[in-house]
Amino acid sequence: MNPPGTFHITATDGSARTGVLYTAHGIVNTPIFMPVGTVGSVKAIAPDDLEAISAEIILGNTYHLYLRPGDELIARRGGLHVFNAWEKPILTDSGGFQIFSLSSLRKLHKDGVIFRSHIDGSKHVFTPERVITIQRNLNSDIMMVLDECVAANADYTYTAQSLDLTIHWAKRSRDVYPKGEGDNLLFGIVQGGMFKSLRHSSVSQLIDLDFDGYAIGGLSVGEPKEIMMELLYDTAPLLPKTKPRYLMGVGTPLDILKGIEAGVDMFDCVLPTRNARNGTLYTSQGKLNIKRKEYAEDDLPLDENCSCYTCQTFSRAYLRHLFHSQELLAFRLNSIHNLTYFLNIIFGARKAIHGGYFFNYKQQVEQLYCN
Amino acid sequence: MNPPGTFHITATDGSARTGVLYTAHGIVNTPIFMPVGTVGSVKAIAPDDLEAISAEIILGNTYHLYLRPGDELIARRGGLHVFNAWEKPILTDSGGFQIFSLSSLRKLHKDGVIFRSHIDGSKHVFTPERVITIQRNLNSDIMMVLDECVAANADYTYTAQSLDLTIHWAKRSRDVYPKGEGDNLLFGIVQGGMFKSLRHSSVSQLIDLDFDGYAIGGLSVGEPKEIMMELLYDTAPLLPKTKPRYLMGVGTPLDILKGIEAGVDMFDCVLPTRNARNGTLYTSQGKLNIKRKEYAEDDLPLDENCSCYTCQTFSRAYLRHLFHSQELLAFRLNSIHNLTYFLNIIFGARKAIHGGYFFNYKQQVEQLYCN
Repeated sequence: MNPPGTFHITATDGSARTGVLYTAHGIVNTPIFMPVGTVGSVKAIAPDDLEAISAEIILGNTYHLYLRPGDELIARRGGLHVFNAWEKPILTDSGGFQIFSLSSLRKLHKDGVIFRSHIDGSKHVFTPERVITIQRNLNSDIMMVLDECVAANADYTYTAQSLDLTIHWAKRSRDVYPKGEGDNLLFGIVQGGMFKSLRHSSVSQLIDLDFDGYAIGGLSVGEPKEIMMELLYDTAPLLPKTKPRYLMGVGTPLDILKGIEAGVDMFDCVLPTRNARNGTLYTSQGKLNIKRKEYAEDDLPLDENCSCYTCQTFSRAYLRHLFHSQELLAFRLNSIHNLTYFLNIIFGARKAIHGGYFFNYKQQVEQLYCN
Repeated sequence: MNPPGTFHITATDGSARTGVLYTAHGIVNTPIFMPVGTVGSVKAIAPDDLEAISAEIILGNTYHLYLRPGDELIARRGGLHVFNAWEKPILTDSGGFQIFSLSSLRKLHKDGVIFRSHIDGSKHVFTPERVITIQRNLNSDIMMVLDECVAANADYTYTAQSLDLTIHWAKRSRDVYPKGEGDNLLFGIVQGGMFKSLRHSSVSQLIDLDFDGYAIGGLSVGEPKEIMMELLYDTAPLLPKTKPRYLMGVGTPLDILKGIEAGVDMFDCVLPTRNARNGTLYTSQGKLNIKRKEYAEDDLPLDENCSCYTCQTFSRAYLRHLFHSQELLAFRLNSIHNLTYFLNIIFGARKAIHGGYFFNYKQQVEQLYCN
């Protein structure tokens, strides 16, 4: 087994590439989609389900796990893998994004960010060093540096200042956790808002810090999709080819394929699980809303081309009934299916890259969602 | 395969007995506990989970399924087994109990009962004939006759009149669905409130109608436990030895064992699944409430003597965290465990009856819950 952080590119097709990333809990084939296990479980889904759908890595939220049950408690259990019985790789975010989206009070200063818990209003401080400690307590395979994710409408001056802070934090993160210090990989995060020049500056400063991988942050935060894509296609090629690239919090099946086209390797998003809980389900024929009356007597599976437990076992009529009755089982069955769909999109992309027909593959999915 | 309704006693120990009941969807070993699939799914639990915990038969609620998605819709799907992907036996109640507990308006008359849906207030009529039609639409393996379940504090006069009505309905049920008419078994229900003489009368009149099995209804409706047990031990021996006996809506592990001691074969109760959703979990050391702080750092499984997925995979600390965070996964994992516990109580009882030590077995469980 190669040491954690080893990343081999196994095939390319244009900028799209397949690879293998080694972590302390085994390999991750890329491109990969990471189901989001916000507070320590992928919502409604157990490890047996994750195994069944061939998930390779899941994401945990540092902000949530720090607040409850607490990173030190998890460390005493033997880390997050032991705690949630998931033996494969785990990536944790830095908590920065949740502080900005969930916390009622937050005060940025050079050392870090003061915030109030969305659970009980208690006051907390995250510093770059602190979030590394927390993520090491969780024993995350891939840790993220603390960053500030600016709003889509932030102006140049604010964004430039924010980027300085984010880079300052990235340096401190690297300083407190130098390369080779442990088996937990550390990824830097590109910020710079909607400004290409700032993003370019962000990339070059991060590369100097020699992280194990690089994430593109601050996209899909409310900006028009064209701008997001322009920034994505502009930023991704600047990142080191030899390191894994991660597009944070993105996105729709088509967004993911565009990310892969741009040369990105890793993706996470709550979309498949959140939509599952809202009754929006992805199929090879496009999205459908299982709430709709038209499915009340539909004996077909959700997706005839899907081999997941849900599609192999139940009809749309039954799934519609479960959802309509808000039965708990609906959330598991819908989530199994949507995650399978997202993973299959990824598995299909890998095949297409190996086969040299990635562009056609992406176009097929494009037709599904752009008509 | 013997014809549906065939019932063989395979061992006895005092009044307790083991047996095999044949249905159109396979055999049910008795004694048996039936997980409750109220609106078409055992809450939070899929058929794969039911298989894994060795469930043999589940219960569906006629009232709920009639209102939503509708028995005719289910019939067009091929019946409830096809609809909910459960190929083993299903018992459905008559809906009577739900009308009395959930419906805002109800008006009893000789022909049946008029009630309003708890979902949308719409008006409906259940007659003895109607509930047979509904249950045949569901293609239930074991159908129950329509009955009135009187409150624990009903006086003799009311209860006697109610029993007359229930017996009248039982006759009409038998008339509209004579023995041999179909593969759906039909069980009569003993009523008579808290009055032994009325229950005796109920039993003898039902026996004249020659049902495929006999249920004891109207217990566990708010009366003191001693009275319930006295009535149970008084009524059960009067029922035909050669037919399956079913104690409706009962109960705790100890209630079930007392029922078995009295000669009852079948049980159903929402207790294991409802308690699972409330965080009350059954173990070989007694009940525990997983919410409690004392489990926050408890690395033991819920029950070291349990082989269910939950106990084999997760710690109390993790289950406490999931429940505390109200993660959807908590409901599935807790339900898998509690149902396993109830089924294991039953499987243990079978062994004990075969081994001739049922009384000791019951006493062990008694000690667990009576200290």
